[in-house]
Amino acid sequence: MKIRRSERLVGMTHYLETQPYRLIPLPFFAQKYQAAKSSISEDITILKHAFLANSMGYIETLPGAGGGVIFTPGINKAVATQYLQILQQKMSDPHRILPGGYLYSSDIIGDPTLLRKIGLLIATRYAGQKADAIMTVATKGIPIAQSVAYYLNVPYVIVRRESKITEGPTLSVNYESGSSSRVEKMELSKRSLPAGAKIIAVDDFMKGGGTVSGMRNLVQEFAGELLGISVLVDASSSSSCHQPMVTTLLNVQQLDVQRPKLTVGLGNYLDMTDFSHFHNN
Amino acid sequence: MKIRRSERLVGMTHYLETQPYRLIPLPFFAQKYQAAKSSISEDITILKHAFLANSMGYIETLPGAGGGVIFTPGINKAVATQYLQILQQKMSDPHRILPGGYLYSSDIIGDPTLLRKIGLLIATRYAGQKADAIMTVATKGIPIAQSVAYYLNVPYVIVRRESKITEGPTLSVNYESGSSSRVEKMELSKRSLPAGAKIIAVDDFMKGGGTVSGMRNLVQEFAGELLGISVLVDASSSSSCHQPMVTTLLNVQQLDVQRPKLTVGLGNYLDMTDFSHFHNN
Repeated sequence: MKIRRSERLVGMTHYLETQPYRLIPLPFFAQKYQAAKSSISEDITILKHAFLANSMGYIETLPGAGGGVIFTPGINKAVATQYLQILQQKMSDPHRILPGGYLYSSDIIGDPTLLRKIGLLIATRYAGQKADAIMTVATKGIPIAQSVAYYLNVPYVIVRRESKITEGPTLSVNYESGSSSRVEKMELSKRSLPAGAKIIAVDDFMKGGGTVSGMRNLVQEFAGELLGISVLVDASSSSSCHQPMVTTLLNVQQLDVQRPKLTVGLGNYLDMTDFSHFHNN
Repeated sequence: MKIRRSERLVGMTHYLETQPYRLIPLPFFAQKYQAAKSSISEDITILKHAFLANSMGYIETLPGAGGGVIFTPGINKAVATQYLQILQQKMSDPHRILPGGYLYSSDIIGDPTLLRKIGLLIATRYAGQKADAIMTVATKGIPIAQSVAYYLNVPYVIVRRESKITEGPTLSVNYESGSSSRVEKMELSKRSLPAGAKIIAVDDFMKGGGTVSGMRNLVQEFAGELLGISVLVDASSSSSCHQPMVTTLLNVQQLDVQRPKLTVGLGNYLDMTDFSHFHNN
């Protein structure tokens, strides 16, 4: 059976999207689809245009014997703005307010469609920066870490606030919980990260900044390099903390538990992100 | 600019794969790509063949005014067997053995490529069963739940062993921890699930079966319907529990902490799963 171009394009789209950031030699596709290398090269040209036109990301070709194609997922600025506004609208419901000034967000981080958007936004922020792993703190950071890890195609590691028997030996740091001013402990399995790993830290919520500082210290303890920190919702009062390298998708501007009244704005994401690769020229 | 068929096929592949189980009317695509409905119909015919040929899943067409297409992700039996063998090989390393007869698996459930395989296997098992939500227990079940939720395009809910302030009101049940024979408590936010929801429960590890029983009770408390339970690794001794409706991907056949010696086989997955929709005829 002769596999026509159209079926090849569908299969290659699927393959590239499930293998982002992997160098795929053209002979691999030629063999997989029993097609000439010249046909596969033409397919790649078509895919490059189509991926940018559909705001799926960009495909880079590395020439030469050891070359091939690499797919970098990412969205353009217009789509990013639209995604942020969807999240902003979802998060702005005053019914989300919980005692203590927290926000109920389990439905948002449990919704696969919204999680894909969050993951793609953060992956676009760090596109091409060659991260080795995503780090997060249990429990609600996990879905965000996983979504980012999908798009960057790197593993993610879960920092725990208490030890679990199934983790094996751990490395731990103390940090000051910003909301309660208590000193707490977070720890990570020693098997989790190789020394020198480039880390992106993510979390769902930032209030006092203690968790974020703790992850920063933990990356140092593992002799890793922190590429940046991204949080979904920044609820820190403007004066309480100046956290460097933090990208925020949303920002709580007003939260009144009594009335109840909630105003959520966009964070610094659009200013922090370079979209130049993701626009069709 | 005229958008050619090839670019349309790439965009539609991306759209369908990120919107599984959603009815998409053909006029939506016709408008999105400014193409005639007859061209879109031809595109769909091509996509149907290509999706099956690449073991991506099947596309169903619903005729009539309220009709459209629905994409159901899933793999054929050959690919499923290959995925299970990859997981089996990964899990069989005796270095995974931890004190107490547990297995280190954080690297497997933290690897996006392996997680996609786990999610796709479980989603294939329940393909077309119209689940409303995935349920899991914190912490290590979360990545698996999220991956399944992606493919079934439904939310997932996280059961906790202890209360967190940011969850709001909760419903809780007691269960006997199989490994320690202690009575423990698990709880779920009352906002998480509507009554009558069809639930798939997932977890990373089953030892005594207590966690699985606890989730079963919790589904009852929420007046939900349990479609089934899927676990990555079944390490229960054959006599200790007979859990109905449980699908297991892998099965610990021998685990000796002292030597150390570990034998992992395939679970009952292939027997429990109907692949008939995912084969090209």
